[in-house]
Amino acid sequence: MNKIKIGIIGYGNLGKSAELAILQNQDMDLVGIFTRRDPGSVKTATGASVYFIEEAMSMTTKIDVMLLCGGSKSDLPVQGPQFAAAFNTVDVFDNHEKVSEYFDTMNQPATEANKVAVIAVGWDPGMFSLNRFLGQAVLPQGEGYTFWGKGVSQGHSDAVRNIPGVLDARQYTIPIESAIEAVRNGEMPHFTTKQKHLRECYVVLKAGANKNEIEQQIKTMPNYFADYDTTVYFISKEELEKNHNEMPHGGFVIRSGKTGLTGEKTHIIEYSLKLDSNPDFTANVLIAYARAAYKMNQEGVVGAKTVFDIAPSYLSPIPVRELIKNFL
Amino acid sequence: MNKIKIGIIGYGNLGKSAELAILQNQDMDLVGIFTRRDPGSVKTATGASVYFIEEAMSMTTKIDVMLLCGGSKSDLPVQGPQFAAAFNTVDVFDNHEKVSEYFDTMNQPATEANKVAVIAVGWDPGMFSLNRFLGQAVLPQGEGYTFWGKGVSQGHSDAVRNIPGVLDARQYTIPIESAIEAVRNGEMPHFTTKQKHLRECYVVLKAGANKNEIEQQIKTMPNYFADYDTTVYFISKEELEKNHNEMPHGGFVIRSGKTGLTGEKTHIIEYSLKLDSNPDFTANVLIAYARAAYKMNQEGVVGAKTVFDIAPSYLSPIPVRELIKNFL
Repeated sequence: MNKIKIGIIGYGNLGKSAELAILQNQDMDLVGIFTRRDPGSVKTATGASVYFIEEAMSMTTKIDVMLLCGGSKSDLPVQGPQFAAAFNTVDVFDNHEKVSEYFDTMNQPATEANKVAVIAVGWDPGMFSLNRFLGQAVLPQGEGYTFWGKGVSQGHSDAVRNIPGVLDARQYTIPIESAIEAVRNGEMPHFTTKQKHLRECYVVLKAGANKNEIEQQIKTMPNYFADYDTTVYFISKEELEKNHNEMPHGGFVIRSGKTGLTGEKTHIIEYSLKLDSNPDFTANVLIAYARAAYKMNQEGVVGAKTVFDIAPSYLSPIPVRELIKNFL
Repeated sequence: MNKIKIGIIGYGNLGKSAELAILQNQDMDLVGIFTRRDPGSVKTATGASVYFIEEAMSMTTKIDVMLLCGGSKSDLPVQGPQFAAAFNTVDVFDNHEKVSEYFDTMNQPATEANKVAVIAVGWDPGMFSLNRFLGQAVLPQGEGYTFWGKGVSQGHSDAVRNIPGVLDARQYTIPIESAIEAVRNGEMPHFTTKQKHLRECYVVLKAGANKNEIEQQIKTMPNYFADYDTTVYFISKEELEKNHNEMPHGGFVIRSGKTGLTGEKTHIIEYSLKLDSNPDFTANVLIAYARAAYKMNQEGVVGAKTVFDIAPSYLSPIPVRELIKNFL
């Protein structure tokens, strides 16, 4: 069997997890990791080859799918269309507001290059999106809910870290259990923002920083914290490193729907994730969709695709007849 | 917009639920219900037209998708290929052992007629199959678990009803909470049959029947009860009708998987259903896949298809660009 030849762009948390994820998939080989750093300075977990990112473009025949492991803010809007013009790609673009625009940005170069660009996979967007959608498709009369956490939010942690006087910080998003219970009971509640999630910040201060001032700055920060009940804990650098060094996450997608002539029957669909490592799980989803990109492109499919466009069987190396036997 | 024209074969529990499910979907019209009974004797919930089943074959141009709402044991193996040779079809074939054979039975006539036959949808097989599969695809190093209930099992209820001396009966399948918790904790346990589910039977006896004998017959029945801890309650006909007349069901599909260089990270994916009405929810899934059958066939797809073959977007009337905005 010809293995699917994979390249990784970017060797941050996600790229490192992707390197390990490939080991779990017998039908794939990791060709190389491409980085902006000096390849000689990068030590990989599995001994994978490391290249300057500029070298990638000379390896179009050696790589079937490129995993774009950069960030949504500045990396993907630039790298995405560049690589989509030369490779099948998969990425974790996660700016919900801009994803429609990003779709177009990727669709054109991928289509022109006869390649597939799978965008915005992972768990949210990704598996959560799929479940929000499937819930609506099978229970059109109903309400959908997404709760996140308990988990570390990278964006919110960064926002706290950017406050002058803050040395380091972790932000946990915590779903409110009583809100989840109300949804599970079929009550179809309407929530304000602060009724669904709490936020907890663990903050290490720089010497001489003003605790009260920084706590106020966090709690009143628009978009990030102002609409939530936020608790701020000031801790030492040592405690942060000891107790807050992992990247757990997860959450719940719940659909509450009605059937019957007068809507007298209630149905609850719940999809939940409890993840020890956000980047590891994200990478595993990325890998499954990399396989889909490869298989679809082999069949002549081109252009940008989302989780909504991809038949499940493409995600697996198992032949469809075996899927029927083992999973149906 | 041209609405999708739907026909229903069979007016039992599922057919009745399908009639109501169509009302929730603005892009569909119910053309008629086809039955083996005298149409004049059938009163429908929505005033839908009723026809002799033999009339269906003269209506191939009037119906886009036929919902096959008969049973897997004797109806679908015969009706399935007949209707697949003339219509796009969707069915709830649920005999896991024979589904591979049934796929072939449906694939040939559907392919020859240039139609799509979506087989084995509902929730198990169906949404549960999809989630068993997706769990494996994104967490290949792991274990999958399915728990059913609490809910009424039609097959097990029938098995009890078939015992001489039994007037009527309901059987509840009950998942064992401590087993589910062990899976949720990432322990990856191995279970015997009786460690996953309990069975409860509510039995109405005929006059003169022997309680102890019937209880023994139930508890020792091979395949159905012998491998489980089963509790038998003898109740009156009135109590059965009052307290056991609904058809709730549900269950849990859980994937427990590992990532990391040495499998040190644990991830739990859980999909659960809590359904007031098993046939209502099954019908809602059937309707979504009926839409998929129609849309795929419009694009030239033919042959038998399962949940693994169908891209999610086909299930919804919402255009893909709207899906990206609303659900991604």
